[in-house]
Amino acid sequence: MNNLNDTATLLAHCPDAKGIIHAVTDFILSNNGNIIELDEHVDRVDAHFFMRMQWQLTGFEISRERISELFEHQVAKKFGMNWTLQIDSKRPKIAIFVSKYAHCLYDLLSRYESGEWQIEIPLIISNHKKFADLAQRFGIPFHYFPITSSNKLEQEKIQINLLHEHHIDLIVLARYMQILSSQLVNAFPKKIINIHHSSLPAFAGANPYKAAFHRGVKFMGATAHYVTEELDEGPIIAQDVLHITHRDSINDMKRKGKDIEKMVLSKAIWSHLNHNVLVYKNRTVIFE
Amino acid sequence: MNNLNDTATLLAHCPDAKGIIHAVTDFILSNNGNIIELDEHVDRVDAHFFMRMQWQLTGFEISRERISELFEHQVAKKFGMNWTLQIDSKRPKIAIFVSKYAHCLYDLLSRYESGEWQIEIPLIISNHKKFADLAQRFGIPFHYFPITSSNKLEQEKIQINLLHEHHIDLIVLARYMQILSSQLVNAFPKKIINIHHSSLPAFAGANPYKAAFHRGVKFMGATAHYVTEELDEGPIIAQDVLHITHRDSINDMKRKGKDIEKMVLSKAIWSHLNHNVLVYKNRTVIFE
Amino acid sequence: MNNLNDTATLLAHCPDAKGIIHAVTDFILSNNGNIIELDEHVDRVDAHFFMRMQWQLTGFEISRERISELFEHQVAKKFGMNWTLQIDSKRPKIAIFVSKYAHCLYDLLSRYESGEWQIEIPLIISNHKKFADLAQRFGIPFHYFPITSSNKLEQEKIQINLLHEHHIDLIVLARYMQILSSQLVNAFPKKIINIHHSSLPAFAGANPYKAAFHRGVKFMGATAHYVTEELDEGPIIAQDVLHITHRDSINDMKRKGKDIEKMVLSKAIWSHLNHNVLVYKNRTVIFE
Amino acid sequence: MNNLNDTATLLAHCPDAKGIIHAVTDFILSNNGNIIELDEHVDRVDAHFFMRMQWQLTGFEISRERISELFEHQVAKKFGMNWTLQIDSKRPKIAIFVSKYAHCLYDLLSRYESGEWQIEIPLIISNHKKFADLAQRFGIPFHYFPITSSNKLEQEKIQINLLHEHHIDLIVLARYMQILSSQLVNAFPKKIINIHHSSLPAFAGANPYKAAFHRGVKFMGATAHYVTEELDEGPIIAQDVLHITHRDSINDMKRKGKDIEKMVLSKAIWSHLNHNVLVYKNRTVIFE
Repeated sequence: MNNLNDTATLLAHCPDAKGIIHAVTDFILSNNGNIIELDEHVDRVDAHFFMRMQWQLTGFEISRERISELFEHQVAKKFGMNWTLQIDSKRPKIAIFVSKYAHCLYDLLSRYESGEWQIEIPLIISNHKKFADLAQRFGIPFHYFPITSSNKLEQEKIQINLLHEHHIDLIVLARYMQILSSQLVNAFPKKIINIHHSSLPAFAGANPYKAAFHRGVKFMGATAHYVTEELDEGPIIAQDVLHITHRDSINDMKRKGKDIEKMVLSKAIWSHLNHNVLVYKNRTVIFE
Repeated sequence: MNNLNDTATLLAHCPDAKGIIHAVTDFILSNNGNIIELDEHVDRVDAHFFMRMQWQLTGFEISRERISELFEHQVAKKFGMNWTLQIDSKRPKIAIFVSKYAHCLYDLLSRYESGEWQIEIPLIISNHKKFADLAQRFGIPFHYFPITSSNKLEQEKIQINLLHEHHIDLIVLARYMQILSSQLVNAFPKKIINIHHSSLPAFAGANPYKAAFHRGVKFMGATAHYVTEELDEGPIIAQDVLHITHRDSINDMKRKGKDIEKMVLSKAIWSHLNHNVLVYKNRTVIFE
Repeated sequence: MNNLNDTATLLAHCPDAKGIIHAVTDFILSNNGNIIELDEHVDRVDAHFFMRMQWQLTGFEISRERISELFEHQVAKKFGMNWTLQIDSKRPKIAIFVSKYAHCLYDLLSRYESGEWQIEIPLIISNHKKFADLAQRFGIPFHYFPITSSNKLEQEKIQINLLHEHHIDLIVLARYMQILSSQLVNAFPKKIINIHHSSLPAFAGANPYKAAFHRGVKFMGATAHYVTEELDEGPIIAQDVLHITHRDSINDMKRKGKDIEKMVLSKAIWSHLNHNVLVYKNRTVIFE
Repeated sequence: MNNLNDTATLLAHCPDAKGIIHAVTDFILSNNGNIIELDEHVDRVDAHFFMRMQWQLTGFEISRERISELFEHQVAKKFGMNWTLQIDSKRPKIAIFVSKYAHCLYDLLSRYESGEWQIEIPLIISNHKKFADLAQRFGIPFHYFPITSSNKLEQEKIQINLLHEHHIDLIVLARYMQILSSQLVNAFPKKIINIHHSSLPAFAGANPYKAAFHRGVKFMGATAHYVTEELDEGPIIAQDVLHITHRDSINDMKRKGKDIEKMVLSKAIWSHLNHNVLVYKNRTVIFE
């Protein structure tokens, strides 16, 4: 986010082995690169290795175009690495999906407009017209897609085209009250973040606040996760919780819930945008 | 806890109506009592009224023996109150059940011995011999009850008699690894507190840390609840949670879990001993 | 907030004595009022009594105009009560002061516009022009008051008049980077809420994030308080904290700080608007 | 803690430079070592590099006796590293200092006796006789050193000898109510951990709970830090906080404070024993 243009970030994982870090750092050093951050983690149970490395491209002796090819050939292949390389040469493009609650939307727009996040928001998509004016006041094209059970697949096809046209890097479901079909989920793997208004796996599904109230729990929460085909079962990126008491009615929970929802969603987006998130076996490794 | 001998505590609930607080305070005032604490709560959804009131018995013009009868007659009957009256004239007697983990046991013993809690612990019951020496060093009788599926009901009958003999006020399951049968649960309604090592309702049942690890959650927790016939479904008294990351192995979770378990269990016992807990519809109202 | 038009809220405190609650509830009951909420607290050290009571005005047999007079005469006088009565017949009017950071401003505007808060914002005052456009897009008059050491008192006089003209009920300093003079503070006693970007009393004054970084603390925070003549010394309404590590640079702290600042400020405003806050000896009693 | 006998842990810091990780991992790899954990951090402001690395000694081709010499010569010297090497071949020896409060002492003893921590506690030192029996029941020699202003330096000399005799690795001040003189502090640099009952720097010095109550803060805390010559100014290892309200009296704060004190102290000791703590410029880097 803060290093547009001159840094590269590598996210990689592979079976653990001797010499991985040495090989990776050797690749950078011998090409005159300067490592800014290196973070690694080993899952002892699975003997699996994870790492995130950032280095400066200024002075690096491999051209941007050839880094991937050479890294695969000289390092990754040897260790059977699963890896991605990100070069932050432009602002990531985010599409926001929203329905009838705007607390997350306002929060995202304010981070965008104030420059807290170096992003672009080329479009807002909604199954309601409610926030068309809000989008317009922030200068963002608003696309209204009414959804019914019979037109959903058709509408999603148009949405997918629209998202591709705008080269969308990340889709944020900011309390979007429609379940995405597989075609949309699979068109953007690990690129759709949803906010669920409970501390998953507790109270998955609809009406979590009501369920939490009736179970008499003393904590409520919110969960941001990548969307997968299984509803509310995707890899968790961020969670937060809030202490509640018997004095909190369901309305109080909804009100307080809005605040943790918007905070947790923003935290997850920040982690994603900074290439801090690795997904492995439906869990996340968050480097930060 | 701090007011042995001269205070009475009323816990009451009933359908909401005009004049309840007025009637209750009138009962105290007109008998020259001095209210120390009064806390009330109304559940708007159910239109149900809850209250906790503490007053000084010194100078109160009704004798201890007659308070209940007169309160029922003059106040409670009129409003259809469900109520209990506690007069702290002696230290509550607690029985601790334990199996193979001692972190909660040590914590309870230290609060007892240091005088942090004004209680008596007449006995420790275990299905293992492991902590017999520890109990002895703290001067507490230790009763070993090996449990098998075939002898459980028989052993529990002996336990129940033992608990009655010692006039036990509260049973604490301090990581007791046996499911109590209905006969034991029903012999001590709302008098058995269990600590479950997850933030219920998430990860009920066995091996919650393992399940939490594999779901990749970012928070783990502990829950203290009254034991009812439904396993892990009783009214929740206290919960706490802890932030975890991908760096926490299942072993780390177990280690950190011990700390929240002992803290949450102690918090729930403190609330119970101070007559801060009302149960209604499998939820708790905690006055504090 | 949720009960426009037909509820009254009493906030009262006085030296503790027998019969206060009885007398207050008698005043309501004998005039056919219906108490919705009653919360009381006694500070044992000072033997001081605090209460908050809300009741329905529908059916109440005293007209709105005469409640205060009769309550003072029939109840308050007897106990030496310090009290206020609020009747929510209209939306409270809030003036926002802001300088160069907008995160709190955006958050307040979104709560206002989405209807989460039933308020009016008749004006935004700033010592910079930066957010004139933002205010305009939300339809709120923006008043630019450049402040220098030599013109401050003069400018504040104009501000005070403006605030009075608009019948402002509450002034919110949403990261307003000017110290108010006594004349402005005293013109709105207990009606100015400031957000300070540390967990007071730690790191009062300027540059708290830098100071926190250099002290190597593991928690940072934010504090919302009523403004008094002593800088950063007013009664604390709300605080929150965030765990930080050595990995958090001063920039990370600033970024994360924005989030707790806006949350804590909103929490404090909510408490104030719901008449949940009593000030006593430079401390607050928060009923919620 | 979990890796007695066959792991080595390196803690190192130096001015940032290219190739540090590469050089360090080269030292391990070329001697056939297997890295278990590697964590690094760069302080961007000071351009200072920090790392912690753990590797298996089984199969490592340098004998334990020669590792330090060769590492200094082949790696550390080149980068101007400040480093320590720990080989966990035996349980660390901890001396506990205590006065009149036992909550931390009980907690430490239970972790020791239950085997949660693989440590030895060769002695307990106190300026009161109060806990001699408790120490004895846990089988730990208890040394009573009454302290007055006139005998303090003399008594500390005897204590220092005693601590040296027992090869003490870490001194824990478990609510020890005496200020250590420079001679004792300097005899065990970065080897004395104290627990202070507030969230430093707020409420340093005596009576923090009273001060917190009177300031009306909404959070209280505890801080574990290395002891330096400046009272309450040493590098902070761990902190935690607790939300409080106006309902919490000073006694409630003391009671709740005991719980966070013992948790924070234990957390700091755990970090220290696992060689997770680096001190730099009176701040700590905590690898975990």
